[in-house]
Amino acid sequence: MLRSYVSGSWFTASDEGRPLYDAVTGDVISRISSEGVDMGGALAYGRQTGGSALRELTFHQRAALLKALASYLREHRDDLYALSARTGATLGDSKFDVDGGIGVLFSYGSKGRREMPNDTIYVDGDVEPLGKGGTFLGQHIYTPLRGVAVQINAFNFPVWGPLEKFAPAFLAGMPSLIKPASPTAFLTERLVSLIVDSGLLPEGTLQLVCGSAGDLLDHLTEQDLVAFTGSASTAQRLRTHPAVVAGSVRFNAEADSLNCSILGPDASPGTPEFDLYVKALVTEMTVKAGQKCTAIRRALVPTDLMDAVAEAAAARLAKVTVGNPANADVRMGALASLDQRDEVRRSLKALLDAGRSVFGDPDHVEVIDADAERGAFLSPVLLRMDNAERAEAHSVEAFGPVSALIPYSSAAHAIDLAARGAGSLVGSVVTADVDFAASVVLGVPAAVRRWAASGACCTTCNAPPYRPRREF
Amino acid sequence: MLRSYVSGSWFTASDEGRPLYDAVTGDVISRISSEGVDMGGALAYGRQTGGSALRELTFHQRAALLKALASYLREHRDDLYALSARTGATLGDSKFDVDGGIGVLFSYGSKGRREMPNDTIYVDGDVEPLGKGGTFLGQHIYTPLRGVAVQINAFNFPVWGPLEKFAPAFLAGMPSLIKPASPTAFLTERLVSLIVDSGLLPEGTLQLVCGSAGDLLDHLTEQDLVAFTGSASTAQRLRTHPAVVAGSVRFNAEADSLNCSILGPDASPGTPEFDLYVKALVTEMTVKAGQKCTAIRRALVPTDLMDAVAEAAAARLAKVTVGNPANADVRMGALASLDQRDEVRRSLKALLDAGRSVFGDPDHVEVIDADAERGAFLSPVLLRMDNAERAEAHSVEAFGPVSALIPYSSAAHAIDLAARGAGSLVGSVVTADVDFAASVVLGVPAAVRRWAASGACCTTCNAPPYRPRREF
Repeated sequence: MLRSYVSGSWFTASDEGRPLYDAVTGDVISRISSEGVDMGGALAYGRQTGGSALRELTFHQRAALLKALASYLREHRDDLYALSARTGATLGDSKFDVDGGIGVLFSYGSKGRREMPNDTIYVDGDVEPLGKGGTFLGQHIYTPLRGVAVQINAFNFPVWGPLEKFAPAFLAGMPSLIKPASPTAFLTERLVSLIVDSGLLPEGTLQLVCGSAGDLLDHLTEQDLVAFTGSASTAQRLRTHPAVVAGSVRFNAEADSLNCSILGPDASPGTPEFDLYVKALVTEMTVKAGQKCTAIRRALVPTDLMDAVAEAAAARLAKVTVGNPANADVRMGALASLDQRDEVRRSLKALLDAGRSVFGDPDHVEVIDADAERGAFLSPVLLRMDNAERAEAHSVEAFGPVSALIPYSSAAHAIDLAARGAGSLVGSVVTADVDFAASVVLGVPAAVRRWAASGACCTTCNAPPYRPRREF
Repeated sequence: MLRSYVSGSWFTASDEGRPLYDAVTGDVISRISSEGVDMGGALAYGRQTGGSALRELTFHQRAALLKALASYLREHRDDLYALSARTGATLGDSKFDVDGGIGVLFSYGSKGRREMPNDTIYVDGDVEPLGKGGTFLGQHIYTPLRGVAVQINAFNFPVWGPLEKFAPAFLAGMPSLIKPASPTAFLTERLVSLIVDSGLLPEGTLQLVCGSAGDLLDHLTEQDLVAFTGSASTAQRLRTHPAVVAGSVRFNAEADSLNCSILGPDASPGTPEFDLYVKALVTEMTVKAGQKCTAIRRALVPTDLMDAVAEAAAARLAKVTVGNPANADVRMGALASLDQRDEVRRSLKALLDAGRSVFGDPDHVEVIDADAERGAFLSPVLLRMDNAERAEAHSVEAFGPVSALIPYSSAAHAIDLAARGAGSLVGSVVTADVDFAASVVLGVPAAVRRWAASGACCTTCNAPPYRPRREF
C-alpha cells in the first residue's frame, strides 16, 4: 500500500484500496488509497508548520535548499529510474522525467539566487507617487499567501510534474501538498520518500496524498491555491467546487492542449528546416510514448509539402522499435496503463473518422521482449487530415504517440488553424523565413501561452520558462 | 429611455423598461432596458472592429488617445457634475467620481508613454537561455487577447468605475464593453455619449449596454475577459457561468470588502496621528455617503484608546450636515437609491446585534433642503463593537456611511483581526512607530490586495495603483 506523508508523518490507509499495475507486464505493483487521511488537518499543518517555517527563510535561503535538494536527488536518481521503467518509460524517458524534474530544482535555485533578493519580501517596481504633495506614495511588495499550494498532477510526469510545481511554490514561500495521479503514484511516493529522508526541507513544506483527493478541496480557504494538470473536464469540475468559488481560490489548470508545429513554406525537402521539423515531430510522438502535454498534436504543413512530410516521417517512424523499456533495443515503451491505451484508442477512432493513418495501426503493434496485450503498448500513429477544417483535428487530443498532419494554404490560414486549438500550451514555427515566423507568432492569439520561435526553432519549452516573479 | 451603444450605433429598447429615480427627490429620471440588444453581435463587433483597430496602434498611440480623451472630458465635466448630483452626490463627491475617472485616463496615458514601448508588443524580461548549446532561447512577449473586456460595474462610481477599467484595457489593446449598474446608469450613458461624440476613439473599442446583461455571458470565449465590481454573491454566480468555466475566461471580481484601518498604540490623543486617523475615518464614512469599495469599515483601535476615538469621531460627525447635495451647506448627500438605503439598514441591524451605535440613528436623520423619506438619506452611523471576536464585525458590510470601532490588544491581535476580512481591498496603519507599521504590514496575509503604509499614512489608494503591465 502506498503511503501518504501528511501532518509530519507517514500514513497508511487501512482499507484494501485499488491496485496499481506495471505498465509493461500488467503485474500488480502496489495498492493505493487515501482512506482515513485527515485532509483538513494536513492543510492546517501545511499552513501553520510549513508556511511559518518557509516565511522565515529569505529567497536565497530557499534557493539554496532547492539546489541542495536537487544535488541530493541526483545522487539517488538510479532508484527513480528503476521504478520509472515500470511506468512504461525507457531509460531516455526516465531521464526526461527524473533529470528534467531535478533540472527544475536547479533552475529555480539558480533563478532565486540571481533574480530574487536575499530577503523575505520581493519589491515590485519603483515607488509610485500617488498624491501631488509627495506624502502619498505607493510601493508594491509581494509576500507569500498564508495557505497551501495544492498540486494535483497528471500521470505522465510522476517526478517532473510535482517538482515543477513544488519548486516555484517553495521559492515563493508557500508549502506544497502534492496529489499525484494514481497510475504512476508509486514513483512519486518514492520521490517524496527520498525528499523526506534527505531531511533538507523544513517540516510541513512538502506533503503527499496518495489516492483520492477525498474532501481535500472542501477545506480550501482564500489563502490556498490549486495548481492542476489533467483533463479539461476535471479542471472544470474542480474550478466550480463550492469552496474554490466561495474563497475565490487561485486556480490554475494545465489541461488538454492541441499544440501545433508549423512548417514554413520555405522549408522544402533538402533544407535543414525540413529535416529538423520531421525529426522533432517523430521525437515528440515517441518520447514518453507521446504522453507529454507539450507534444505536437497538429503538424501544420504547407499543402504542397504534405506528401513529402508524410513520407519522411513515416520512414523515421518505421525505425522506432516498441517494447519492454528495459531492453536496450527498444526506442519507445508502453503507455502508462491499459486504461490509458483504451482512452487513446477511443480518441483515435474519432480522429480516424476525419482523416486516415499514414503510419501505424491503432490495434496492432510488434513489440520486443514483452506481451503486446498484457502491457500497455501502442504503435505510433501518424494521421493525415486533408480536410483541415474538420473540428476533430483541432479538438480531440489522443494523449499518446499520435500526431496529425494538417495542410494549410497561406500564413493567414496557418494562423487561423493554430488559433482553433483555443488555448494551447506551446506552439512552434520551423522556418528560415524571419518574416513568416514573425507574422505567425504575432498573428496567433495570445491563448497560446508559451510560444517558441526563432529562425530555425525548436519545439517545446522543456526548461522552466517562467521567471519566478510571474509564478505567484 | 437610456440607450446602449453597440455595434457602432445607439440602440433604444422598445419595451417599457424599468424606471430610475433621482436619489434626492425620488422623481423618475429615465427608464432602462437592454431588451433587443444583440449581445453576441456586440461582442463580435468589439473583437473584429475594435480589437483590430486597437492592435494597429502602438502603446504610445493608445496612451496619446487616453490623454486626448481625458482633456476632452475635462472640458465637459460640468455636464457630468450636474447629472451626478441626481445620484445623491455633493459637488465634492462628483469631483471625486468625475475628476477621479479623468485622472485615471491621464495617469494611464502618462504611464503608457513612460513605461511602455512605442510598439504594439511588450517584451517581458530578458532573453532566457533554455538549452546549453545557445540554440534554444526564450523571450516572453505580451500581445493583446483577441476578445472583449466585459466590464460590469457597481453603482457607486458611474464615471470613475468604467474609466478605471476601460483605461488599462485600451492601453493593453483590448476593446471594452461597459455594463453599468442600473441605478446610476444615466450618468454612465452621458459619459459614453460624450466619448462617442468626441470621435477620438477607434470605432468598436468602447461599447455600452444599459440594462440587464441578458445573454451577454453566453457568448464569451476564451479570448474575452470579465472585470466585475459588485457583490460577492453576484461575483460567485458570474464566476460559475457555464461559458466562463468552459472557456477558462479570465474573471476578476472586486467584491464586498471589510477594509480596516489600524491606529497605532503610540497614537494617543494630541498626536498628529490621532487627529489624522479620526479625520480620515470620518472622511471615509461621509465621502460618497460611504459608498466606496475602499471605505474604512473596521477601525481597529487599541483598547485603551476606544473611548477617545469614539468621542473625537462623534464630535466630528456631529458637524456633518446631510441633505440636498445642491445646497452649499450640505456636507453629505443621499445614498444612490431607496433600495440601497433598505439594504444598508438591513446590514446595520445585523451589526447592531453585535455592538452599539456611538453616533447616528439608522432610522432618523435631519436633512437640509430635502425630504428625508423621499430621498435616500441616512445618518452617518459609527458603531462600537467591544467584543472584537464577533463574526458580524468582520463579515457584514453596510455599504453606506457606516464604520465600526473594534478594540485590539496587541500587534498580533490587530493582525489577526485584519486578516478576518478575508480579502480586503485596502488597509492602512496610522502610526509614527515604524516597527509597528512594518510588523503589521508584513504580518497581515497577502489577501489584502493593496496596502498603504507609511510613518503617518493615508487610507486608500485613490490613484491607479497598478503598473500597466500587471493589469493584463
